[in-house]
Amino acid sequence: MLHVVLGVALRLVYAGCVPSAGILIIGNEILSGKVVDTNSPYLCRELRGLGVDVERILTIPDDVDTIASEVKAMSDAYDFVFTSGGIGPTHDDLTMEGVAAAFGVGVELSEAIAGRIRRATGREPNESQLKMAQIPTGATLLDAGDSWVPLVVVENVYIFPGIPELLRKKFESVRERFRGVPFVLKRVYVKRYESDIAESLHALLHEFPELLLGSYPRMRKESFHVMLTLESRDAGYVQRALDSLLERLPADAIYKVE
Amino acid sequence: MLHVVLGVALRLVYAGCVPSAGILIIGNEILSGKVVDTNSPYLCRELRGLGVDVERILTIPDDVDTIASEVKAMSDAYDFVFTSGGIGPTHDDLTMEGVAAAFGVGVELSEAIAGRIRRATGREPNESQLKMAQIPTGATLLDAGDSWVPLVVVENVYIFPGIPELLRKKFESVRERFRGVPFVLKRVYVKRYESDIAESLHALLHEFPELLLGSYPRMRKESFHVMLTLESRDAGYVQRALDSLLERLPADAIYKVE
Repeated sequence: MLHVVLGVALRLVYAGCVPSAGILIIGNEILSGKVVDTNSPYLCRELRGLGVDVERILTIPDDVDTIASEVKAMSDAYDFVFTSGGIGPTHDDLTMEGVAAAFGVGVELSEAIAGRIRRATGREPNESQLKMAQIPTGATLLDAGDSWVPLVVVENVYIFPGIPELLRKKFESVRERFRGVPFVLKRVYVKRYESDIAESLHALLHEFPELLLGSYPRMRKESFHVMLTLESRDAGYVQRALDSLLERLPADAIYKVE
Repeated sequence: MLHVVLGVALRLVYAGCVPSAGILIIGNEILSGKVVDTNSPYLCRELRGLGVDVERILTIPDDVDTIASEVKAMSDAYDFVFTSGGIGPTHDDLTMEGVAAAFGVGVELSEAIAGRIRRATGREPNESQLKMAQIPTGATLLDAGDSWVPLVVVENVYIFPGIPELLRKKFESVRERFRGVPFVLKRVYVKRYESDIAESLHALLHEFPELLLGSYPRMRKESFHVMLTLESRDAGYVQRALDSLLERLPADAIYKVE
């Protein structure tokens, strides 16, 4: 139970200055194994680099009630919520209705989006395009990249498309809104099995209780058996922990430090 | 709201004969973007092929209380729960404690697992190996592949390792336990934009209300713009829906059917 207590301590130290986030992936196609979700790995990497703590990733079906209850729960729990998927023109695109229901409002036609569609296509939006212009009442529109579809934001919920290329373009254009206190990361590649170094890691954590220490064994034939990650938002702390770790392990056990 | 009602109808038709599942991915390394989760896409594909409905994928940190509450919620909601990760020998491997807490029990040394370790390694387990032999009180052990670690099962919760090669080997060896009523899937690749065919899809769903219809636009330059998927557990129903769809779309809009 040591680790849980330490986790709480770390959270208290940084509470108030580190933004948290939840990611909500919406789509039957993910759950049925037809499409692999590449959006949450992308968002996790980007948000980590920005100093945002992703605390949960949840994948749910295209169902209004489920979307509504999960958006509400994440919006209450985290500083930022990122949704992906379910905003296209077809029958199974229900994210806008779900987010609206989460906040007790309905959806309505955005004249601003309809106007963008008219200017981009040179003609009146058809029924399907008009569906894509239906957004939650009171939503904010952010210009995001060069697409005719702006990023729709409701309170702290950022509604991204499921198509990876579009999600990335939109995220890139608004990423600075989310900047927190980034982590400093050191990696140590070890030529020993995890069970052979576990006791050294316990001792390291005892000396550096606020260190975020990860240990990732590799099964494939590689030049090392375990990748260790040492992280903190305090660069000096990480360096002192790294020095201590390198003293604890036999010199010939270290494959690489980076 | 049509689609939600249809979803409920479909569920009632099959209720009782189609197993449901939740997948719980446990690991800070996924949330921090250091490791990409390939286990949930694998499990989704395999379970779909077996006829199991995956209703939720949730990724959470290595935290005992979070693991416990989410395991409990999934165990109550679904027929099967698959966890991945957090069962190694290091400080951040807390899944066994979390699953035990979910069911109001503790963890205890499994003499069966300790014995396997002794036989496999020819020596007494060290402290880290003994940690890996700590499992929830009352757990069932299933032989799963050739590893010295059996698959640990608590009620309807199957506790898999996070290392993809090990997870796959273990899943392969127990997969027949989960067989339900598989879906029949047809794919139609369409050389039109999604917004141009959305109204035909609405009409198709009106005629075939129990069809599971997916529509997946492609951004990259390909020979088609949209992949449609038609699914049902009734092969004749899928075929009739496919015939109807092909009549509704212009012949030159179809790139391929498979």
